[in-house]
Parts: sequence; C-alpha cells; structure tokens
Amino acid sequence: MGYVSLVKRTRRLLRIQNQLARECLAELLAVFVLILITLGGSAQMVTSSGTKGNIITSSLAGALAVMVAIYTAGGVSGAHLNPAFSLSMSLLGQLPWWKFPIFVTIQIFGSFIAAGAVYALYYDAIWSYSNGTLTASGPRETASIFATYPAEHLSLSNGFLDQVVGTAVLMVGILAITDTRNRAVPRGLEPPVVALLVLSIEVSMGSNCSCPMNPARDLGPRLFTLLAGWGSQVFRWVRAVGLDLGGGGAPMWMLRAHGSAGSRGSWWWWVPVVAPLVGAALGTALYQLFVAFHHPEEEEEDGGRARRQTKH
Amino acid sequence: MGYVSLVKRTRRLLRIQNQLARECLAELLAVFVLILITLGGSAQMVTSSGTKGNIITSSLAGALAVMVAIYTAGGVSGAHLNPAFSLSMSLLGQLPWWKFPIFVTIQIFGSFIAAGAVYALYYDAIWSYSNGTLTASGPRETASIFATYPAEHLSLSNGFLDQVVGTAVLMVGILAITDTRNRAVPRGLEPPVVALLVLSIEVSMGSNCSCPMNPARDLGPRLFTLLAGWGSQVFRWVRAVGLDLGGGGAPMWMLRAHGSAGSRGSWWWWVPVVAPLVGAALGTALYQLFVAFHHPEEEEEDGGRARRQTKH
Amino acid sequence: MGYVSLVKRTRRLLRIQNQLARECLAELLAVFVLILITLGGSAQMVTSSGTKGNIITSSLAGALAVMVAIYTAGGVSGAHLNPAFSLSMSLLGQLPWWKFPIFVTIQIFGSFIAAGAVYALYYDAIWSYSNGTLTASGPRETASIFATYPAEHLSLSNGFLDQVVGTAVLMVGILAITDTRNRAVPRGLEPPVVALLVLSIEVSMGSNCSCPMNPARDLGPRLFTLLAGWGSQVFRWVRAVGLDLGGGGAPMWMLRAHGSAGSRGSWWWWVPVVAPLVGAALGTALYQLFVAFHHPEEEEEDGGRARRQTKH
Amino acid sequence: MGYVSLVKRTRRLLRIQNQLARECLAELLAVFVLILITLGGSAQMVTSSGTKGNIITSSLAGALAVMVAIYTAGGVSGAHLNPAFSLSMSLLGQLPWWKFPIFVTIQIFGSFIAAGAVYALYYDAIWSYSNGTLTASGPRETASIFATYPAEHLSLSNGFLDQVVGTAVLMVGILAITDTRNRAVPRGLEPPVVALLVLSIEVSMGSNCSCPMNPARDLGPRLFTLLAGWGSQVFRWVRAVGLDLGGGGAPMWMLRAHGSAGSRGSWWWWVPVVAPLVGAALGTALYQLFVAFHHPEEEEEDGGRARRQTKH
Repeated sequence: MGYVSLVKRTRRLLRIQNQLARECLAELLAVFVLILITLGGSAQMVTSSGTKGNIITSSLAGALAVMVAIYTAGGVSGAHLNPAFSLSMSLLGQLPWWKFPIFVTIQIFGSFIAAGAVYALYYDAIWSYSNGTLTASGPRETASIFATYPAEHLSLSNGFLDQVVGTAVLMVGILAITDTRNRAVPRGLEPPVVALLVLSIEVSMGSNCSCPMNPARDLGPRLFTLLAGWGSQVFRWVRAVGLDLGGGGAPMWMLRAHGSAGSRGSWWWWVPVVAPLVGAALGTALYQLFVAFHHPEEEEEDGGRARRQTKH
Repeated sequence: MGYVSLVKRTRRLLRIQNQLARECLAELLAVFVLILITLGGSAQMVTSSGTKGNIITSSLAGALAVMVAIYTAGGVSGAHLNPAFSLSMSLLGQLPWWKFPIFVTIQIFGSFIAAGAVYALYYDAIWSYSNGTLTASGPRETASIFATYPAEHLSLSNGFLDQVVGTAVLMVGILAITDTRNRAVPRGLEPPVVALLVLSIEVSMGSNCSCPMNPARDLGPRLFTLLAGWGSQVFRWVRAVGLDLGGGGAPMWMLRAHGSAGSRGSWWWWVPVVAPLVGAALGTALYQLFVAFHHPEEEEEDGGRARRQTKH
Repeated sequence: MGYVSLVKRTRRLLRIQNQLARECLAELLAVFVLILITLGGSAQMVTSSGTKGNIITSSLAGALAVMVAIYTAGGVSGAHLNPAFSLSMSLLGQLPWWKFPIFVTIQIFGSFIAAGAVYALYYDAIWSYSNGTLTASGPRETASIFATYPAEHLSLSNGFLDQVVGTAVLMVGILAITDTRNRAVPRGLEPPVVALLVLSIEVSMGSNCSCPMNPARDLGPRLFTLLAGWGSQVFRWVRAVGLDLGGGGAPMWMLRAHGSAGSRGSWWWWVPVVAPLVGAALGTALYQLFVAFHHPEEEEEDGGRARRQTKH
Repeated sequence: MGYVSLVKRTRRLLRIQNQLARECLAELLAVFVLILITLGGSAQMVTSSGTKGNIITSSLAGALAVMVAIYTAGGVSGAHLNPAFSLSMSLLGQLPWWKFPIFVTIQIFGSFIAAGAVYALYYDAIWSYSNGTLTASGPRETASIFATYPAEHLSLSNGFLDQVVGTAVLMVGILAITDTRNRAVPRGLEPPVVALLVLSIEVSMGSNCSCPMNPARDLGPRLFTLLAGWGSQVFRWVRAVGLDLGGGGAPMWMLRAHGSAGSRGSWWWWVPVVAPLVGAALGTALYQLFVAFHHPEEEEEDGGRARRQTKH
C-alpha cells in the first residue's frame, strides 16, 4: 500500500488540469507513435532491401500506426493526428478555429521528432544500406524512408489529384464510421476500423506517391531530412518542364541543381502539404451533401443521443 | 458559435427529406467509393508491374472497399452496392420490387463514374505502363484494371458456374452474418466482417475470372472502357468455337474480329452480368432452405426483436 | 404485401421443426461452405502455379472459411464443423454422445460433396494445370488440393505429433475464447476471432503436413479423389521402411505399388483422421486442468450467467 | 446425465482454489501457447527455406500468438506473458512486487518448455534443413528459430535502443488500449487489438533484431538451445571490438571462440533480456506523463467505473 500511495502522490504532483495542455500532450505522444511506426515500416522495407519488409508490411505499418495513435489520444484530444483531419473538424464546427493552428503545430513538431527517433533506431541500418551517403536519389536513396516522393511517371497535376482523392475518401470514410445516425462502429473499435480504411487507400491509391494524406506526416520528416544530412535536395525535386506531355517521351522527376529556381509550379514538396487539405475539405463536403445533411431532423436534436444510449 | 450556426443553416438549406432521394444519394456515394477502391487496387498492381501491388493487396482492396462502402450508406440505403444483393433483398421481401430497377441504375451509374475517376487517378500510370496504347489484350493490356476477363483455360460454362457459386457463397454469408436468430454480428461491425467474407471468396475463387460477383462492378467499368479509348474490344472477348474440348488442345479466349458475330453463346461480357444474379438467388434459397426457414416460430414474430434488444 | 405473404407462406410450407434435423441441415451447409472455401484456396494457389495464390492467401482461405462457416450455423447447431471439436464437446458433456456419430457423418458427407463442388469449380483449371492427368505425385500433382500429404522430411511419428499438438492448441484456444469466466469474446464476434486462431496455427504449424486439424476435412475430400479419377494412390502414400533414421540418408514419402501391403503403420492417410481426435482430447484436458476447473465455484452455478447478462 | 455428473465430479476432485496457484497455472499454459506459436512461425519460415513461410507469416504468428495467449489466461492471471509487462504492472501498483519474481519464473519456465515442444514438432524439419548439424551461424543455422540474433549491421547500442523503443511503444499501446478513461477497447476484444499492436511493431521495428520485446521469450528458448545441442555458441555472439565505427569498414557480429572472454560489453544475449525491461519502464512513464496522470480527478475515484458500467 505504501508503494501504491507513492504512485498516487507522484500523480497528484505532476497532474496538469488545463484542458488544452492535456490535449496537446496526448496529441504529441499520439503523433509521435504514428510517425514512428509509419516511417519505421518504410525503413524496415528499404534498409533490408526487401528481405524483411515489402509493400504489404509497410502498408500494414502505416495503417496500424493510425490504430495505435488513435488509442493513445482518442479519448483526450480526439487524436486528430493530421492537419487535414483537424481542418475537417473545424469546418464542421467540432474544433474551434483558434485551436486549429495549435494542433497543426503540435502535429508537425511530433512528426519531426519522430523522424529523428526513426533515424536513431535505424542509424546503423541506414548507414550500412546507403554505403555512407545520405541521398534522395539513386538506387541507394534513403530520403523516401521519411518523406514521400512521386513515381517517375507522375505529372504534378496527377499527383495533386491523387492526394485530393485519397484524402477525400479518407474523410468520407472516417465521417461515416463515426456517424451514429449511419452504421457507426461501437465505441472503442473505431481505431482498428479506421486502420482498415487507411489500409484500403494504401493498397488502392499508394503507387503514385506513397499516399501520405497528411501534411504533418510529410512535412515534419522532410524538414528533419533537410537538417540531418540529406540537405536541401529533399525540397528540390521538380518535374522537368517542357517534357510533361503524357505518354510520349520520358518526362521525369529529377533533382534540380542548387540555386536554379525554375518555374515554381513544378516543385513536388508542397503537393503533399496542400492537396490533403483540399481533399479533406472535399471529402467533408461530399459526405455532408450525400449523406449527413439529410438525416431526419428529430434524430439530430435528441433522438440520436437516445438511440446511442440504448445501443450500448 | 457564429460559425457553428452557419454550418447548421447551410444544412437546413440543402436538406433533402424524400426517403428515396436520400437512399439514392447515399447509395451513389457508397458505390462510387466501392468501385474507386476496388479498381484502384487493380490499377496499383497492374501499372506498377507488381512492384507496388500483388494478389494480396488487390484482394484486400476489393474486400476493404466493401467495408468502407457499407459504412458510407449502411444506415441510410442499406448499402446494397450490388444488383445481385438488391435482387436477393427483393426476393426476400425486404426491398420493394419497384425500387429494384432504380437501385440497379444507381449502382451501374456510380460504377461507371468511379471507373472514370480511377482512369483520372491513374492517367499517367496507365499511359506510361501501356506505352501509349489502351488495349484489352497482350502483355501490356490495361482493360483488366476495369472489367474482368476470364483466364485462358476457362470454358464459358465453368466461368458461369464460378460466378454462380461465388455469389451464392457471398449471399449465404451475408444472410447468416445479419441473421439475429443465428450468430449475428453486433450492430456496427457487419462491414469489416462482410469484408472478410468477400476476402475469403477472393482468395478461394478468384483465379478463374477475378471474382466480380457484382453485375454493376463489371458492366459499369466495361462501358467506361468502351467509351474511353479501349473501344469495342472490351465486349468482343469470345471463346474459340470447336476447340472447347477440355484438357486437350489449347482452347483460348481471344478477341473476335470486328463484325464477325459468330455463335452468340461464346461472348464473355454477359457472364459477370447474369451469373451473379443467378448465384444470389441460389444462395438466398440455400440459406432459407437450410437455416432461416426453420428458426422457431415465436422468435420470428417478436422474440427475435426482444432478444436483439437485450443483447445490446 | 402480396409478395411478402407469398414468402411467408412458402416458409410455413417448408418449415422443419425437429431440432436434430435443423441442426443437421445447418451443419451440412456450414461444412459445405467451410470445405468449399478451404479447398478453393488450395486450388487457386496450385492451379495458378502461384501467380494468383500463395501460402498467405491459402492460409487466409482456410482461416476465413471457418469464420463464414461458424456464422452459417453457429446459432443453430453450434457449428462444430469438425469431428475433433464434436468429440471435445461430448467429452465436456455439451453434446450428447448419441449425437456424436450423427454429427461426424454429416461432417464427412458435407466435406465430400464440397470437394466435388471444388472439382467442378476448378475443372478447367485442374485439367489445364495437370496436362490431363490426375495424379497424386510429381510436379503437376493435384491431389494435394483436396487432402493433405506430408512433407518429404516428415516421419510418421512427427506427423502424428504435429496434428496432436496443432489440434490441442486449437481446442485450448476455442475453449478459452468462449469461456465467459475467462476473457470471452463478445457474442457474435467469436467467428472472426476463431478464424484468427486458426490462422495462427496455420502460419506456425502448417509446413509439416498442411495443418488439417479436422478428420472430416481430410477424409471427405480424400474419398472424393479416390472416386473422381485420382484412384487408390491417394490412400497409398507410405513412408519407406528402414530409411527412417532421422537426419541421415533421405527417407521419403512415396506411393506404394498397388497390392504390396507392407507394414501397416507407415500409411499416411489415417494420421489426419486419428491424430486430431487425440489432440482435441488433449487440448480439452489441458484447458480444464490449467484453467477451467479452477474458476471460483459460485460463478459456475449462477454468477457466470449473471456477469454475462450485465456485460451485454 | 450420468456422464455430465462424472465431468462435474472430476472437476471437484481436481479443483485448486488458491488464487496464486490458479494464476501460475493459467500463466504457464498461456506462455506455453505464446511461445509455441511464435517460435513455430519462425520454424515454418526457416525450415521450409521460405516456401511455406515468410516475413508476413512469421510476423502474423508472433502477433496472433499474443492474442491466443491473452484469451487463454486473461481472465485469470491477467495474461502478463512477459517480464517487461509484469514490471510495468508492478510499477503501476497493479501487481504486488512480491509476485513479480514468481511471474517471471513461470514465464521463463513456460518459454523453455515451449521451445522444447517446437523442437519436437519440427524435429525432422530441423534435422533435414540443417543437414544434421545444429548451428548458430552459417546459411543453414537454426538457432534463430528459437532466440533472436542481431542483424550484421547492428551496433550493440543501436540494438539496445531498438529494444527499448519497441517495448516502450508496446507498453504505451497496451496502457492506452486498456485505459477506460481514454478510448478503451470493449471487454473481450483486447486480445486481437493487442495482437495488431504487436504486429505494428514487428513490421516497423523488426529488422534490426527480430523484435523480441520480451525477456522470457528470448532467454527461455536460448537456454533450451544451449542444452539441446546448439551448445554455448548461442550465448557467445559478440560484436567485434575496434571495428564498431558505424558506416565504415564492415563491423560484424561473430561467434567468439570458446574461452576468450573479451570485453564483456559486446555480448549480445543480455540485450533482449535487459532492454525490454528498460523500455517497459520508459513506456509506462511516457503514457503516465503524457496522458494518464492528467485524466480528470473525479473519474479516477468512481466516475470511471460508472462510465464503464453505462457503456456496456
């Protein structure tokens, strides 16, 4: 009993009662776990040259990471994990707009330090695999462990569309799964179902640009690689101008030489930052227009809650 | 609060109260998501030449697509998604017969536009993979991303049987999973269990003709490829007549030259349209005859409902 | 309404009220579905030469088949599906001993006709793959689609042990999963959890002799292949006598020439029939001795039921 | 009825009422099943040279083994299964400290005999695969079926970090999943969700040293291989001193010649014993500091229980 009361006293000492601070702490831990597992899955596949990981294990890592992260913070901060999801919640009036930039900051920061943890975890593996050179191109590149890069065939507009559609499907799915006036998942089982939703998108829309669907998941680790030794090349991927004719020739993504700015529109890095936000807004609108707006009125006011109570 | 009331006012403005219109909208969005993920899984496997997709990822895509789609519309339209399922519901008296053609039209239309979305999403990938020629045969064919085609060894009758049996198992499974007088799944968890059911059929009856089990899933995308550049060849797959002896020689499916009609019975395209309807009727009959008809009478009237209430 | 009353009248006409007959019908349909999906998964892997199936898809087929089958009959007959499970239920006093042979007969019969359905479903594929010869040995053998055969390295005693241990783990798992005084699965979710249990055994004890764990699953299809053209060779697999020294030389399983009886103990076919029964008894005893016997007394009488009611 | 009362009488005869003895028996059976399935998955992959197992099946085995084991003992002993988890429970005041060494002993003992069972189960396969020599190095080594060994590139400190981080994520996940004031899993479904958590770590942190995360899982089987014929080499893996420079040269893990002690810090075997304990303490602290300590006070006392009751 002496030990138990010691635990309780420690707890009382360290307790934080401010709601926003509690949400930020939980969100930070959840994002950290999310990105640790997601990037870890990539690192395992890449650095083992496919012997201990493949498209299935890395997709599973990305999907299950979401499950673990939602359990970690779901009951405290809602486990947004993703600026695109936070935007959607704000659009629906479920997250005050003033909290939006705070959540986004936490998400990018958590993602950045998780990228650092993955680098530490796979430090020997990365250096061994890359023969001592941290690079973002070539057969032994390791930058794609952290941020996402487009497939060679992909045009910028197609990449943008890919992330808009992928994130829109993600939002339609999440809103449906948690809509108690539709066929909602029982409380406590949303995380594995959302993980399966993420997996469904990874296996159907994952080959164009690895399906980030989350600005923080992409930007945080990209900033980390910028600082950790890969250098500015991680932001300098551009699609060669004038060759983008579709089907003919061989238009390719390439590293732009340092300094030559070129047409701004061809940079890649901003696509997985902006397109998911557009997609989240689109998906939210679609689910409202096709389903949620039309639920019977009375359920909205109190019937919904009543049905929910009898269900459990 | 000002923003929240704006959201509410928008909702009131756009609300549709007509039950049929609500069902059609929800069904349309659900079918769109279903086909987007299903065909996306094929496109990822085909256009990456197997490097970012394989039989497992594409089977998962087809199965999880059903899960996401049921969540999207399950509480509104019942998420039929499939003319074969709608037929079964009508046969059981759970969908009025006059609604049947409306649901089927929505399902084919949703499937058609989702095929268009997959084409847009994989536009660069398809053109790059196919070397600029959209074709339904040869090593770089891309038509099988959209509709299903038979394996070379398959006879027409065996293909028909395959789809009858596959869809019958699907219907037996769905009716059992949702039968509250049997071992029914708790409300809200039917979608992932149905997805596992679909997966079980894909991994056990998927090699003959890719297991469509859904007339809309096959016909909608086939119509899309007809119009989008693959041309009439997508309907002109026939099995060579006179060689269909089974085991001997090398009977094969081939593209019939434009114009030569031949024996009508050898066309492929109608098989995944008709056989699933036959299979759904068969599966529904089997489950009634072997299980559902024989549940104790009293449960049917009110006991079933009573048990259901105490369970939740 | 006219149509709905027609459905109801048909039901009343065909209703069977006898409890045993109801159980047999449901069990028959469930076993049929179980074996159809299980063998279908093997057929897909074998006849596509691994292009449309592999160890993962066929393991998933075997596991998910159990899920679908339990949903099909779980609420009526208990979905035993397996003589080994029925034996365990009889040992525990939950299935009257006089019903045991009836259940076993239904299980073997259902398994036999399901093997026939798989043969029909893969008729073209099997003849194409096997080049027109149905054989149980050689690189193009197709008998292993239906029944199980031992790996070359396996001794008879090791094979027997494999099936005893595998089935014992299966029974420990099922008894634990459904034990409401332990950490029981919520009602309606036992089937997917049992499927995961089966999968866990398939991926950890599946390489010695393909993990049948069910006498009906093995004997029914073996009888089918005996009659359908593979002939008596499916029963004549024996381990060569005198070479079984372990590690040295190359002791192998081989087809015994017709007529030469040899030492009876070396036949294979009876191992997957007898060993699972031994394993089920062992597993049942283990769970009772290590866990179930020691649950507090009061819970056994009525507390168990009370806790169960408050839980749901 | 005579038979049923026989069963009941047997039970009364063998019943153990001592709480600690009940816990030890249940824990022993659960650990046995856990290690049997986990090592079985490795044995299937290794001895079939990858034809009947791969990184996915062996990861599934490791994850699902946890599910089966938790069901086996979850309602009796809590199914700790792992000294690292027991440590965490003691740190949180949920397992009395005096029980900690008892649980650890049971866990190591259960793990040891399960390794023996796997050896028996795969006796023929191991001798056939290894050409009659039980060794811990070389292309036909079989020691890694039982205990874990580091990848060649791994430094000792990186390996230690790997196990600290992996086990920390495991503990954060388990504490979150079972925290009723967060988004807890419904009772009875914790086992499959914890299995998915384990799978997420195996696919993201499994390539450095096979992700043991459990001192008993590693030490028990290592002791077994020491005694069963592999000899002391299973403890003599060391990292060559003086070459451990990271990235340059080719520092490797190698078998140290018998007798030459060398610098003690380079032995491998103690890493998977000590690091998981450190990681469990770290993960427990992280979850308390970021989430659990800050839950509202009133819920801790009785509100938590109240909410839990209304939920079910």
